[in-house]
Amino acid sequence: MRRLTAEKFSLFFFLLLLFVFSYSVLAAGKSIRRNKPCNRLVLHLHEIIRQGNYTFPNATSAAVTKRVPGLGSFQFGEMYVFDNLVTRDANPHSPQAARARGFYVYDGKDSGNDLYMITLSFNSTEYTGTLTILGTNNHSLKTRDLPVVGGTGDFFMARGVTTLEVDVIDFTTSYFRLKMDIKLYECY
Amino acid sequence: MRRLTAEKFSLFFFLLLLFVFSYSVLAAGKSIRRNKPCNRLVLHLHEIIRQGNYTFPNATSAAVTKRVPGLGSFQFGEMYVFDNLVTRDANPHSPQAARARGFYVYDGKDSGNDLYMITLSFNSTEYTGTLTILGTNNHSLKTRDLPVVGGTGDFFMARGVTTLEVDVIDFTTSYFRLKMDIKLYECY
Amino acid sequence: MRRLTAEKFSLFFFLLLLFVFSYSVLAAGKSIRRNKPCNRLVLHLHEIIRQGNYTFPNATSAAVTKRVPGLGSFQFGEMYVFDNLVTRDANPHSPQAARARGFYVYDGKDSGNDLYMITLSFNSTEYTGTLTILGTNNHSLKTRDLPVVGGTGDFFMARGVTTLEVDVIDFTTSYFRLKMDIKLYECY
Repeated sequence: MRRLTAEKFSLFFFLLLLFVFSYSVLAAGKSIRRNKPCNRLVLHLHEIIRQGNYTFPNATSAAVTKRVPGLGSFQFGEMYVFDNLVTRDANPHSPQAARARGFYVYDGKDSGNDLYMITLSFNSTEYTGTLTILGTNNHSLKTRDLPVVGGTGDFFMARGVTTLEVDVIDFTTSYFRLKMDIKLYECY
Repeated sequence: MRRLTAEKFSLFFFLLLLFVFSYSVLAAGKSIRRNKPCNRLVLHLHEIIRQGNYTFPNATSAAVTKRVPGLGSFQFGEMYVFDNLVTRDANPHSPQAARARGFYVYDGKDSGNDLYMITLSFNSTEYTGTLTILGTNNHSLKTRDLPVVGGTGDFFMARGVTTLEVDVIDFTTSYFRLKMDIKLYECY
Repeated sequence: MRRLTAEKFSLFFFLLLLFVFSYSVLAAGKSIRRNKPCNRLVLHLHEIIRQGNYTFPNATSAAVTKRVPGLGSFQFGEMYVFDNLVTRDANPHSPQAARARGFYVYDGKDSGNDLYMITLSFNSTEYTGTLTILGTNNHSLKTRDLPVVGGTGDFFMARGVTTLEVDVIDFTTSYFRLKMDIKLYECY
């Protein structure tokens, strides 16, 4: 009977240890796995670019520097500032989910590329807070991954990756739409 | 007596397990709690803005791009570069605690907003190192949270949140003062 | 003999606990130590600066804003965009290891300083992915540490520190070379 007691203890401890061990492993190392984001948002960004001196009705972005001559044919040096509508649905007339503000600078000499600096501001029943996205945007790729480098509010201390994909480019209306697949791997 | 021994063991293990468990939980998940920063600095940033062609004596910031016509009345597209004094005390004549350098770009079409890119350089007996702050600055809010996305030196690998609040705006002297409440949640 | 059994159990548990404990401590807190990066890359960045209206052959960077008069003698306000070759070897004719794109803005009023925003794009047999580096670059220091704030691809969720050092400045050819010692402390 005493033996049994010891065995019971050992079983109890073994199970407890297993639990502690699993918990530590999961919690520690933050269990970051690419296919297991702790939060995910699929959003659509709508931009209407102001062209030259003529402002398209409802333009949401505009160049603030000029491209540099002699450094390729990909608008090198041109910087655009934007304040864009972001929606859950691809339809630009669907309700606003967030505001995307920031800038991009064309920085590709021999290929289309820009440095993309996006802040997302959420102020809805679903989310309140911001995300900061900053990375290089290679136009040659169908999908481009950009790091999410920080967040506030509901996205306090967030980090992750945003996959961008051009949905629509319409030169006649100076409009483009980006699909943003935001995967967060640090959530607090 | 043997039974007692087993019980003693079990008690010992139970306490040890509790300790290990608590430790793992605290250490893992990095124990990030909003009300428990691992470091906190309250600082005051002083900026004197150069206006047009006339330089205010001791101006510490200046526009490098022009606002874009047709995109609202909030200086959309205007980018300012700054090299500002940062002090512990609100008094602009108190000793320098750090230097704040970087830029901001007005990116609000229908409301006052800017993208704020601040680097803080510390070089004192208290701290040596840098912090990089990058986020969106919504002028409509009394306090604005911006992510701290990185650090070096004494702030090696730091991350956190900076709460900004406008202390003073004085148009006659082209001066404004910001209170920066920096809370770090990753400290190494 | 029963006593022995209990002792064996206790020894077994003690060892297991030690293992769990060590593992948790190592995994948790992410075991970040400055002298133990989880990845390290030493690279060389080559930049040829376009000067005024005259483009140096193969210029890889150019100013897009003008320095502001009255704010010191360190090119305050001048922003350069770049698309630079990055190599493993210091020799600018060695194979490309990555492309460095982004910009820097002179933001030092009383000393040479810039805000440095570098993205590195890797597309080789060794690495595929990007790194985002963002920090302040104090020209007075022989070596400058800048935070690595994010990454994608093989550098998924990376963070770390890049130590920059000017290798060569050649005004006659408008060329400079930087050594980048990239140490990552978060690798997934």
